[in-house]
Amino acid sequence: MTSPFPCTAADLAKLLGRTVAGDANAVITGVNSIELAQDGDVTFLGSDTFAQHLPTTGATCVIVREKDAQSVRSAAWIVSPNPYADIVTILRAVSPLYEHEPGHRDPRAVIDDSAFVAETASIGPGCVITAGCEIGENTQLLANVVLYPRTRIGRDCTVNANTTCYQDTLIGDRCIIHAGAVIGSDGFGYVEQDDKHFEKIPHVGSVCIGNDVEIGANVTIDRAAMGQTVIEDGVKIDNLVQLAHGVRVGENSAIAAQVAIAGGTVVGRRNRIAGQAGIVGHVVTTDDVVVYAQSGVAKSITAPGAYFGSPAKEHAQALRMEMALRQLPELLHQIRTMAAELEALKKEHQQ
Amino acid sequence: MTSPFPCTAADLAKLLGRTVAGDANAVITGVNSIELAQDGDVTFLGSDTFAQHLPTTGATCVIVREKDAQSVRSAAWIVSPNPYADIVTILRAVSPLYEHEPGHRDPRAVIDDSAFVAETASIGPGCVITAGCEIGENTQLLANVVLYPRTRIGRDCTVNANTTCYQDTLIGDRCIIHAGAVIGSDGFGYVEQDDKHFEKIPHVGSVCIGNDVEIGANVTIDRAAMGQTVIEDGVKIDNLVQLAHGVRVGENSAIAAQVAIAGGTVVGRRNRIAGQAGIVGHVVTTDDVVVYAQSGVAKSITAPGAYFGSPAKEHAQALRMEMALRQLPELLHQIRTMAAELEALKKEHQQ
Amino acid sequence: MTSPFPCTAADLAKLLGRTVAGDANAVITGVNSIELAQDGDVTFLGSDTFAQHLPTTGATCVIVREKDAQSVRSAAWIVSPNPYADIVTILRAVSPLYEHEPGHRDPRAVIDDSAFVAETASIGPGCVITAGCEIGENTQLLANVVLYPRTRIGRDCTVNANTTCYQDTLIGDRCIIHAGAVIGSDGFGYVEQDDKHFEKIPHVGSVCIGNDVEIGANVTIDRAAMGQTVIEDGVKIDNLVQLAHGVRVGENSAIAAQVAIAGGTVVGRRNRIAGQAGIVGHVVTTDDVVVYAQSGVAKSITAPGAYFGSPAKEHAQALRMEMALRQLPELLHQIRTMAAELEALKKEHQQ
Repeated sequence: MTSPFPCTAADLAKLLGRTVAGDANAVITGVNSIELAQDGDVTFLGSDTFAQHLPTTGATCVIVREKDAQSVRSAAWIVSPNPYADIVTILRAVSPLYEHEPGHRDPRAVIDDSAFVAETASIGPGCVITAGCEIGENTQLLANVVLYPRTRIGRDCTVNANTTCYQDTLIGDRCIIHAGAVIGSDGFGYVEQDDKHFEKIPHVGSVCIGNDVEIGANVTIDRAAMGQTVIEDGVKIDNLVQLAHGVRVGENSAIAAQVAIAGGTVVGRRNRIAGQAGIVGHVVTTDDVVVYAQSGVAKSITAPGAYFGSPAKEHAQALRMEMALRQLPELLHQIRTMAAELEALKKEHQQ
Repeated sequence: MTSPFPCTAADLAKLLGRTVAGDANAVITGVNSIELAQDGDVTFLGSDTFAQHLPTTGATCVIVREKDAQSVRSAAWIVSPNPYADIVTILRAVSPLYEHEPGHRDPRAVIDDSAFVAETASIGPGCVITAGCEIGENTQLLANVVLYPRTRIGRDCTVNANTTCYQDTLIGDRCIIHAGAVIGSDGFGYVEQDDKHFEKIPHVGSVCIGNDVEIGANVTIDRAAMGQTVIEDGVKIDNLVQLAHGVRVGENSAIAAQVAIAGGTVVGRRNRIAGQAGIVGHVVTTDDVVVYAQSGVAKSITAPGAYFGSPAKEHAQALRMEMALRQLPELLHQIRTMAAELEALKKEHQQ
Repeated sequence: MTSPFPCTAADLAKLLGRTVAGDANAVITGVNSIELAQDGDVTFLGSDTFAQHLPTTGATCVIVREKDAQSVRSAAWIVSPNPYADIVTILRAVSPLYEHEPGHRDPRAVIDDSAFVAETASIGPGCVITAGCEIGENTQLLANVVLYPRTRIGRDCTVNANTTCYQDTLIGDRCIIHAGAVIGSDGFGYVEQDDKHFEKIPHVGSVCIGNDVEIGANVTIDRAAMGQTVIEDGVKIDNLVQLAHGVRVGENSAIAAQVAIAGGTVVGRRNRIAGQAGIVGHVVTTDDVVVYAQSGVAKSITAPGAYFGSPAKEHAQALRMEMALRQLPELLHQIRTMAAELEALKKEHQQ
């Protein structure tokens, strides 16, 4: 698809399957936010938050909800039940995704004879699909993706460039794996010998990822020593996250960038783990737990709620401690004064 | 190798080179842990920790130490001097590693004429072996591995997919490098100019990795500006670790996920650095140091022992501080009361 | 270029375009620092810091500033206006960079017909250059680099192996991108639904990187949901850093390893963000801010200066708090004593 710009407001309305009001022939050359839009731009107003900008925006065309149409002062406008979705449609026309034609088999890909690739799945250049792999319908492997033997990926997935899946990795449907992710590498498990050198524990488990999971760029998820590391349906994982061997993440949990979760830990459903937080191994967090950024969870969390600090405490307690700590230098001074006064009083008494 | 299942208990015993007791014809269809095993599973008991599960496990076949044989209630059992090693053998048969045939030269690999690849070394698809590289016997480069010029890798190593080694990287024998690791990138070194822009310091050193080292997925190890960044024998490095230019890590040290060690720092032997910890540049930790998770080591550590906190202190001191901090909000209240009482006493005295 | 060693001191001088003093025929076999250099080594003295080693160094040849020439006791010496630059020249001859010939088009690269690659740009093996990409003069794509459609890279850049740029990524001139970096992946943006599952927010923005930017190994920089994530001229980013969607980093700022900056945050010019620090989303740091290692910036910073702690405070305040905290366990003891004494005094009074 090529860029729709330059075009008229009427052309945009047609692209969206809607009708234009005002000057249908107004020329549109770009997209911008409502505060920054200038002559030639199309913009949108999707919520009340930015409504004050509607009368003053420099945009030539605005996509608005019906209730906002009367406040438009721009040359043209398009009424929509979902202005945000419509602006995304326009932007996707400007910046289409990198995708192969369904059924593409790039001549520079390597596909083992024993692998099964569904008819509509697409395999980009430099991909390596080894023995016993299975790729579902409409799934896209973009470029230089390496799948070790018996990796199975469901339908409607996108696997971005330079991703690696180790043997027996299982990925559900509608997943997005971002570039550079490594799924199924050996866990960090050794037996320390008497002379303090390490003997490696073989990792013969695997990684199992549910449906509708998104995995960020350069994420690492280790295979279990035995059994499975499990990411349940609907989990969203940000860039550079580390999930160790045998971790289980409950459905619809979200894990922000650079979080690390150590081996064997079970994260409940609907947890929200903020950036750079860590959770030690072999603990459990219950459902509906929020862990704040940079916190260190050192033991199991059995009550839903928010936790903060390293080691992590209930958020309210952590805040009280932080507030108290800020008063501590002054407190030291006060106590020294009190101690002197007390000493003086004692002396007086003894006289 | 194809999966051994379904098979009989006798077949498994044969695979292990052992003898079966009980029902030799019992059909085995899977593997599971002793608590979770069900009808058709083989399991194992390798230590006393889980011994209470032996009489009640649902497994059809159990691999046990001789001393536990009398307590087996399952249909079949196999006595072994090392039940754990035997179950790993079975699991490896179920989930074999991704390996090429010794001596494999994939037609989609690029191998420079001036590179030396030992006869039994294997080079997978998409690998790029540039001028002057050397690869030792039985070493496996799996897929899309890029070695910049003069990288030398010893024998019996495995280098996983999408790994990059910059020029002059030196790797010993029996090392495992996990996918996405970057070894030998330029260190973060600049000279700040008067106008505050940075001039890059050329990095002409290299990285030297000893024998029996394991390096996790997406790890980054920078080359020294001059001289070498050194990882000594037996060091184990978890995923997403950052080792800066000129770092040296002493033998048999273990560094957990997302640790960062800044430039020029020397880590002693047998150190244990837990996840997300950081060590500043140009300091030294002595041998046998343990750094707890998320700690920040801000100066050299000269005594063996455990350290915690940011900045890191002796673990016992850090614990005392943490315990005291938890009492601080209440303490503030108490001190306010004491101050009021003291004031009252003073007033009485003055009367 | 092959190694210059072994050679004479005169050969080295010729390589540098300078003249040799002392024994022009002294044989040089290696390079080392002034403290460690031994017989056969060339070394350098570039500043006063190491001047005390000049009379005692074991080096056979020393490169020195004119003012230091009289203190040389080695067999040969070379006077230079910039000894450091000269030793780098020698080291570069020993350890040349991985580069392709200008204009190289590797037969194992994939270059879309609609892409523009400047005549002197070089495309290494396994690179994937998709539709509408543009690569400027003298830029090097080393190996297995994947550029999604419409990526534009300026002139004199180096893009190292296994790097991925998503669609519409824009990179200026003289940039260095290290191996495994992922630029332009989708931001971590979802709308939580009533049933707590997440709907993905389409990310139709892009990443724009200025001139003279260096990006470390395995760094991740997300595209904006709309608009741009912006890295201004002269910014230096260390390994494993995470920059979220819509972040802007001001010119000549430096961001050390494993830093994470959350979505929409604007970092000022000439900021210095130390390792493992984090900055929350949608805040601003003014120009000339220093954030210490492992700090967590939880709100906007409006005054230049140094900040430390999680949450981050002015550095001096954070230090006072840390000092006070160290005294806290003892303080608890003191207060208990004071409380007892106070109680005793009160009782006496009541009598």
